[in-house]
Amino acid sequence: MKLSVGCDIAYEVADQATLIFNIEAMAGGHQTVLDETLTITPDLIAEEGTASQSGNRYRRLIVPQGLVKLRYEAEIDLQPLRGAPETIPEVLVARLPLETLPFLNPSRYCPSDQLSRFAGREFGHIPMGYNRVAEICNWIHDEVDYISGSSDTTTTAADTFSLRAGVCRDFAHLGITFCRALGIPARFVSCYAWQLEPQDFHAVFEAYLGDRWYLFDATRKAALDGMVRIGCGRDAADTAFATIYGTVFPSPIRVWANAPGADLNAAWTTDAISIAVN
Amino acid sequence: MKLSVGCDIAYEVADQATLIFNIEAMAGGHQTVLDETLTITPDLIAEEGTASQSGNRYRRLIVPQGLVKLRYEAEIDLQPLRGAPETIPEVLVARLPLETLPFLNPSRYCPSDQLSRFAGREFGHIPMGYNRVAEICNWIHDEVDYISGSSDTTTTAADTFSLRAGVCRDFAHLGITFCRALGIPARFVSCYAWQLEPQDFHAVFEAYLGDRWYLFDATRKAALDGMVRIGCGRDAADTAFATIYGTVFPSPIRVWANAPGADLNAAWTTDAISIAVN
Amino acid sequence: MKLSVGCDIAYEVADQATLIFNIEAMAGGHQTVLDETLTITPDLIAEEGTASQSGNRYRRLIVPQGLVKLRYEAEIDLQPLRGAPETIPEVLVARLPLETLPFLNPSRYCPSDQLSRFAGREFGHIPMGYNRVAEICNWIHDEVDYISGSSDTTTTAADTFSLRAGVCRDFAHLGITFCRALGIPARFVSCYAWQLEPQDFHAVFEAYLGDRWYLFDATRKAALDGMVRIGCGRDAADTAFATIYGTVFPSPIRVWANAPGADLNAAWTTDAISIAVN
Amino acid sequence: MKLSVGCDIAYEVADQATLIFNIEAMAGGHQTVLDETLTITPDLIAEEGTASQSGNRYRRLIVPQGLVKLRYEAEIDLQPLRGAPETIPEVLVARLPLETLPFLNPSRYCPSDQLSRFAGREFGHIPMGYNRVAEICNWIHDEVDYISGSSDTTTTAADTFSLRAGVCRDFAHLGITFCRALGIPARFVSCYAWQLEPQDFHAVFEAYLGDRWYLFDATRKAALDGMVRIGCGRDAADTAFATIYGTVFPSPIRVWANAPGADLNAAWTTDAISIAVN
Repeated sequence: MKLSVGCDIAYEVADQATLIFNIEAMAGGHQTVLDETLTITPDLIAEEGTASQSGNRYRRLIVPQGLVKLRYEAEIDLQPLRGAPETIPEVLVARLPLETLPFLNPSRYCPSDQLSRFAGREFGHIPMGYNRVAEICNWIHDEVDYISGSSDTTTTAADTFSLRAGVCRDFAHLGITFCRALGIPARFVSCYAWQLEPQDFHAVFEAYLGDRWYLFDATRKAALDGMVRIGCGRDAADTAFATIYGTVFPSPIRVWANAPGADLNAAWTTDAISIAVN
Repeated sequence: MKLSVGCDIAYEVADQATLIFNIEAMAGGHQTVLDETLTITPDLIAEEGTASQSGNRYRRLIVPQGLVKLRYEAEIDLQPLRGAPETIPEVLVARLPLETLPFLNPSRYCPSDQLSRFAGREFGHIPMGYNRVAEICNWIHDEVDYISGSSDTTTTAADTFSLRAGVCRDFAHLGITFCRALGIPARFVSCYAWQLEPQDFHAVFEAYLGDRWYLFDATRKAALDGMVRIGCGRDAADTAFATIYGTVFPSPIRVWANAPGADLNAAWTTDAISIAVN
Repeated sequence: MKLSVGCDIAYEVADQATLIFNIEAMAGGHQTVLDETLTITPDLIAEEGTASQSGNRYRRLIVPQGLVKLRYEAEIDLQPLRGAPETIPEVLVARLPLETLPFLNPSRYCPSDQLSRFAGREFGHIPMGYNRVAEICNWIHDEVDYISGSSDTTTTAADTFSLRAGVCRDFAHLGITFCRALGIPARFVSCYAWQLEPQDFHAVFEAYLGDRWYLFDATRKAALDGMVRIGCGRDAADTAFATIYGTVFPSPIRVWANAPGADLNAAWTTDAISIAVN
Repeated sequence: MKLSVGCDIAYEVADQATLIFNIEAMAGGHQTVLDETLTITPDLIAEEGTASQSGNRYRRLIVPQGLVKLRYEAEIDLQPLRGAPETIPEVLVARLPLETLPFLNPSRYCPSDQLSRFAGREFGHIPMGYNRVAEICNWIHDEVDYISGSSDTTTTAADTFSLRAGVCRDFAHLGITFCRALGIPARFVSCYAWQLEPQDFHAVFEAYLGDRWYLFDATRKAALDGMVRIGCGRDAADTAFATIYGTVFPSPIRVWANAPGADLNAAWTTDAISIAVN
C-alpha cells in the first residue's frame, strides 16, 4: 500500500536554540521510503543521523533567533507482514533474544513494577500468545476513556490506570506496562496513521511475539496496516518528534497521512501486523 | 591496579524459575578481565551473552526447584584514564554524539523533566564542565542523608529530592537526573567497589563530558579509581544483578573487592576517572 | 456485649519527648466504657482531652529520657444499633448534614479526586444505598490482596488501587476513597477488634447512610459488631495511636480484645452496624 | 479599614445539579460584615449554613437545567490584630491547644510527612517564633517561581517542592507543609485580597503562634492586612469556592476587593497580622 505522509512544523526561536527532530519515516524491511523531502526554512544545515539500535532518524539543527519551518513529505510503500493471531506464540523469558530484554524493564512512563500484581490477576490466566496482548488492548479500550487534554507530559501508566482517562500515548503506555509486567517485551512507536481523526502524530506500541515485533493500538482509532513508523523506544520519552534546547514558541503542527487508492475495508484488519525489521 | 572481585549468591527456587544475572565484570578498554570463574551449583547450563550497546554481560539460567548457588570470582586489571577536572568540558547538545542522546531522556527512576527548574536554578550558573558535575555531587552529598533502608525499589530521584535520604542507588539516580536536566548525558553504573563499607554491590553514575564517560559517586563511599564496572544503563531498572521470573527465596549475598597491593592514598583521587570504552 | 480491651505500649525515650496517645475507647452512645484504667510507668502526669468534633480522646505526656510504659485496660459494653441493609438509603449531597461535608473531601491517604472516574464506572450503576457500600467492600476484598508489609506510611489509596495489595489501613483508605468519589461521606476509624488474628489495632471505615454512620470492614478479618472505636478522622493521618515529637525507640506493642461470653455465630453478622454517636 | 468585596459567578447547568458555595466573608472577631447581599438568578432557594468548627459559610443550591448566576457583594470592616513579629513565640507541641492538633497532620495537598527531613535541615536551626515562619515564606518566595498554569488540582506541596513553580494555592500548601513538619499547626485560608493583580480569589495560610492564628502569604502579591477571609481548612480540598455535583459549564468568574480610602503604604505592613477568631 502506498501512503503520502508528512507534516508542517514551525517554531519562533527566542534566541539561538538546538532542535532535534524525529519526524522522518523509518526505512527498511516492510516499510520502504520511495521518495521524501525535508524542507527547512530558512535553509539551515541539519545534521542527519540514524540511531544504530532503534533505527530512529534524527535531524539536529542549530537555529538562530527567528522563525524556523520544517516540511516533511514522503511517499511510503507499506508491505506489512500479516500473521494469523492464533498462531503467534509468546516467547518464554528463558528464550527471548538478548536485545529484547531491556524492553521488559520499567521506564519513565511505564512503571511495570507497580502494576504487576494487577496484570497477573487480570491477564495472567489468559492463554499465552498474540491474543493475550489483544485482550490487554480490549481491556484498555473498554476501561479507559479517550479524552483529549486529560493527561500531560508527566502522566505515567500508573496514573492512567487510576484516572481511567488518557490519549493515545497513555493508551500505549498502559499496554506496554501490562505486557512488561507479564514478561512480554514491549516498546513505544510513534507514527503517521492513515485515517486517524483528527490528523496528528499517533502513538501505538509493539510487543515481541513469536520471532518479531507486532503492532497494537488500544485506541482503535486507526488501521494497524496503515501506520508508518517514525520513532521507537522505551516510551514517549524516547520518541519526541521534537526535542528543544532553548526558548521557542511553537505554531500549531499539521500532520497528514493519505492513501488515495487504498481499500478501506481491508484496512480494518483482524490480521496481526508487523512492520518492524528489528 | 589489580583487584580481586566476586560474589556469592544463592536462591531457594520454589518451582522452576528463569534467572538472569548481570554480575560479571565488563571487559575491554580500561578494564581487563585477567581471569574469571563462574561456578553454578548444581552444574546448570547458563546461556551467556553480551548486550551489544551497553556491553552488559548476562547469564540466563533455567533453574529447577531447589537450591541454586552462584560464585563469581575475577581478577581485574584496572587502568583508568585519568584527566584533569578543569580541562574537561561539557559538550553542547548540538555537538553530542547521537548515541549519547538517549541518556538525556527521563527514565523510570530519573524523571529529569520534573527537576529541571530546580537544576537550572541551582546548577545553571556554575561554569560548564567536569566541575559542574562535581558540584552536583557535592550538593547531593551535603543535602541528602545516606540512610540504609530509607528507600525501596519504587523510589525515584524526585522522591529522594523531597525526602532528602537514600542509599547509593538513590544518590546515583539524583545525580543522573540533575545532569540530564542540564543537558548532560548521564547513565547508571553498577560495580564492585574497593573499600566500600560494608561490602556490597555499589551504584554510581557516569556523565558524558569531553569525549568520554566519566565516573561520579556522590556518596563518597569508595574510591573512583577502584571501581570495577558490571552493568550500565538508563538507571537501576537496567542493571539489576539478578532478574527473576518465578518464585524464589534469596539468601544473603556476599560481595568482595580486594586490592592487596594498592596504594590507599592514591585511591582517593582528585583526578577525573574514566573506564568506559563507549 | 461486654468486651475487655487494652494494650501495652512502651518506648525508650532518647531525650525528652512529647507523646500524644489516642488509645482510649470512645465513650457515649452505643459504646459504654464501664471501667477503665490507664497506667503510666513512671507515674507521669498525662494531660487528658477529648476533641470536640471527633470525640477522640487524647493523652499528652512530656516524657524524660528513659523507658516509658503505658497499659490501657477497659471494660466496654457494646450495644450497636443494627439495621437491615436493604432499608438504609444513601443521602443525596443536597440533603447531607453540613457537618458530614468535610468527609467528602480528598485527604492525605484518600485522594478521591484521582479515582472518581473508576468509582463511577465500577460502582455508579449499583442501586444507591447501604448495599452499594457493601459492594465496594466486596470489590476491595476480591481485588486487593491482604499482605503484611506490602505498604508503608506513605501509601495512598491510589497506590493501593494500582498495587492491589495492602493491610487493614489501606483497605479502609480505598473504601473511603470510593465512597467519597460517589458522594458518600466516609471516615477512618481505628479500633480494638474482637477475634482479629493476629491481635493488633485494627482500621475500618464508616460511611454516612440514612441518618447515621455505619461501620464497614473490607478485610473481613473481624466481626463488625465486635469493634470498639478508638479514633475517628479523615484518614489514618488523624488517628495515629501514638504521635511522637522527639527521638524514641518503640518496643513491640501488645493489643487485646476479648469477649468471653459472646456468641461467636452472632458476631459474623449480616446486619448493618452503627456505633457512632455523631 | 473598610473593604468592598464580591464576585460574579455563573454556570450553565446541563441537568439538575447540586452546588455548594463558600464565597461569603466569615463573620466575627476582627472581620465584621457590615452589609452583604447574595443575589441568585433565577431566584432559587439556597440553604444557608455555617460550619461549627471552621466558621465557613456555605450556600447549597439545587439548580435545574439552565443558567444560574450568583452575585455576592459585601461591605467589610477589617480591624486586624497587629503584633510585633519578634514578640510572637512558637508553642511547644506539649502546650498546643487540643483543637489545633489536627492542623499538624498531613493532608491531601500538604504531605508534611514527606518533607520533614528537608524542613528540619533548612528551617530547624532558625530560632523558634513568628520569624521562623516568615523565613519559610521568604524561602518559598525566593525558591519557587509564581507561574500561572504551572499546576493543577492534583498538585501537592511535594510536587511543588520538586517542580519549583506554582500559583497561590501551591505557595500556601508548601508553607503549611513546612510548618506542620516543624510542629507548627498551619491551615489554608481562601480570601478576597485587596490589591491582588489580577483580581481573583486568593489563597494564603495561617500558622498558630503565641495564642492565635497569624496570616502568611509567601506570594507577596497582596497586603496581609487587606485580606477578607472566606474559607479555612486543612488545605484547598476544604475551601473550594464551589463544589459541584452534576454536569455544569462555568463562565469566567469575576472577583473584586476595593478599599477606596485605604492608605496604600500602610497596607504593605511589617506587622504580624491576625484576623481569625478561632
